[in-house]
Amino acid sequence: MALIVQKYGGTSVGTAERIKNVAKRVAKWKAAGHQLVVVVSAMSGETNRLLALAKEIQADPDPRELDVVASTGEQVTIGLLAMALMDLGLKARSYTGAQVKVLTDAAFTKARIVSIDESPIRKDLAAGTVVVVAGFQGVDEDGNITTLGRGGSDTSAVAVAAALKSDECQIYTDVDGVYTTDPRVVPEARRLKTVTFEEMLEMASLGSKVLQIRAVEFAGKYKVRLRVLSSFEDEGEGTLITFEEDEKMEQAVISGIAFNRDEAKITVMGVPDRPGIAYGILGPIGEANIDVDMIIQNAGVDGMTDLSFTVHRNEYLKAMDVLNKQVKAHIKATDIRGDNKICKVSIVGVGMRTHAGIASKTFRTLAEEGINIQMISTSEIKISVVIDEKYMELAVRALHRAFGLDQPN
Amino acid sequence: MALIVQKYGGTSVGTAERIKNVAKRVAKWKAAGHQLVVVVSAMSGETNRLLALAKEIQADPDPRELDVVASTGEQVTIGLLAMALMDLGLKARSYTGAQVKVLTDAAFTKARIVSIDESPIRKDLAAGTVVVVAGFQGVDEDGNITTLGRGGSDTSAVAVAAALKSDECQIYTDVDGVYTTDPRVVPEARRLKTVTFEEMLEMASLGSKVLQIRAVEFAGKYKVRLRVLSSFEDEGEGTLITFEEDEKMEQAVISGIAFNRDEAKITVMGVPDRPGIAYGILGPIGEANIDVDMIIQNAGVDGMTDLSFTVHRNEYLKAMDVLNKQVKAHIKATDIRGDNKICKVSIVGVGMRTHAGIASKTFRTLAEEGINIQMISTSEIKISVVIDEKYMELAVRALHRAFGLDQPN
Repeated sequence: MALIVQKYGGTSVGTAERIKNVAKRVAKWKAAGHQLVVVVSAMSGETNRLLALAKEIQADPDPRELDVVASTGEQVTIGLLAMALMDLGLKARSYTGAQVKVLTDAAFTKARIVSIDESPIRKDLAAGTVVVVAGFQGVDEDGNITTLGRGGSDTSAVAVAAALKSDECQIYTDVDGVYTTDPRVVPEARRLKTVTFEEMLEMASLGSKVLQIRAVEFAGKYKVRLRVLSSFEDEGEGTLITFEEDEKMEQAVISGIAFNRDEAKITVMGVPDRPGIAYGILGPIGEANIDVDMIIQNAGVDGMTDLSFTVHRNEYLKAMDVLNKQVKAHIKATDIRGDNKICKVSIVGVGMRTHAGIASKTFRTLAEEGINIQMISTSEIKISVVIDEKYMELAVRALHRAFGLDQPN
Repeated sequence: MALIVQKYGGTSVGTAERIKNVAKRVAKWKAAGHQLVVVVSAMSGETNRLLALAKEIQADPDPRELDVVASTGEQVTIGLLAMALMDLGLKARSYTGAQVKVLTDAAFTKARIVSIDESPIRKDLAAGTVVVVAGFQGVDEDGNITTLGRGGSDTSAVAVAAALKSDECQIYTDVDGVYTTDPRVVPEARRLKTVTFEEMLEMASLGSKVLQIRAVEFAGKYKVRLRVLSSFEDEGEGTLITFEEDEKMEQAVISGIAFNRDEAKITVMGVPDRPGIAYGILGPIGEANIDVDMIIQNAGVDGMTDLSFTVHRNEYLKAMDVLNKQVKAHIKATDIRGDNKICKVSIVGVGMRTHAGIASKTFRTLAEEGINIQMISTSEIKISVVIDEKYMELAVRALHRAFGLDQPN
């Protein structure tokens, strides 16, 4: 008998019919003798409906009140799923974030979980009850309702799994696992049986929509065994996210190719190569609440240098505006150049650490396809390149083939 | 400066635009120097949408989980109204039933309020904040979410007003007060400036939709000054619901004519006139969860009698079925007769106690219109008659005129 935490996203609980299907799946696990805690999101579309309603009232909705409104989405789902489970003859009981209770800080709309009181859940589980918990939400120490921000339901599930020291945390989604790359771009993409937490973090941060990055971090921190599965297929083991020490010797060098076309590149040219210049450029960007992804600065020539960085494409114009109005004259840059028709392609794999030649193979593959590399950035288990967005699919396919990801390992 | 509790129903907060209008009205009262607590219902249609969703999942939804789902309707409204108030520059803060906290018993879907912790509200009011409270909901002592049943938001408002010892509890609705009768039936119907609690109770129980009966009882018990007002008109004093001792000498004999066409009449004929027979008939009806309204039993003749009673029209067939299957043979009744084409018309007025001739005037008026009276029942301040439903409008108009209710008093 295992204690299993399952999480179902908005698409999986998008209609009454789908909620009943989730109940059937839960019942199957229960019948196999396991203890079940189920964490759910709002029905798909519901959170957006509530946000739109809030914006009709207040252009920039008050965060505390927005959380009061937004948290109702998950509250509806927990009640409905508990009913569906009871309709199958199971004992079931729902909990809101406040009832569990999921204690968070007071950062409305993007709160972080501080602790979870697992005692009421344990009592229910011992009595054979399936526990249904609202994802995405919690309560601060003053009893205010908080939400964890978009995708927060994954984090809720992992946090509950950690608090209960559960045997496995299963994230049910609309894909059946983590792939070597997006199958819509590379039809030969294969599902990975396992992927390490570090690789998953790199994949997630690069726009892979399978798992929310904070949930992966959380799982890594608390050693929660995490598995991604399809909620629409009955068979399949999905992808298990492992800790490095668990890995088998034969770990592939490269696990996957991630990509992201939501970025834009900005280069500040001809700035004096002296201390404080990076802060002079990126300080105002940060103050404008613009997140920066890659940052590259070459060694200077003749006391001058260029600094390039990437931002989300939606914030490209805002970033250019900040630079032109607040930064350019101040730091005496010769020019600000931007390009929002770029993409980032990354090769990810923990095996990279111990295998030479991954970088050169990457660059050679792209050169053979005639693709110019605009920026390069590397980490211990990742090589990212920025290229013209029109070559994205070509680059991903070529790299996928070059690293043998289309071959069963 | 007064402490005022205002309650807005589902129609008054049915759209973003209407919520903004409510905020404007609240702001006006605040600007006049008052302290404001606003209790709101779910946006119109929302509760029905949630109930339908629950029934899609489970034909007879689990009451605890149904309350988890249904209570989200009001939670959305409190967040939105708080935003709308802030958008007007006011300080505002929302509270769910659990946050206030509104402690109830554990009777899910029809819980009763036990107590309200008014201390957080007082603190906010002292700081000049408008407090927005979710109607219809509370929490039991184990922290389970409960709802008060249909119309429970009125009761929430009155309970909050009682806990805060507020100066006035204003119920905003889609009519501008309590009328001598339904203006759709009698165009000459007049708005009453005042009506007593007892009269209001009789009116409410007879299907007058203005105020929920439990709210009126609650207000009477805790001496809450209650006023019914229109949320769609800016002027008007509505109707104040008074305690008898406050009344002026010139109180009219009759305050209004109520009517109800949702009833059905059932007569059990030829039953032995002996102890236990009423229980033998109405016991099984009660066990089948059928509410009985009027009950009439005449003096018996030759040791035999007939017993008549009325039930809600929706439960007519169920009641007939119970009687025919479980009761008839058992008590040796000669026949069970029913009629679901009846209506009840009632003359209500505290003045009735001290004025003779009200009953005879009622019966004479109906006789002059050729309307046969099928059943009669009286209380201290009410005379009710059951007649063929086709005469309902005729009876109401005739009585309204006969008692001079169309004349300004």
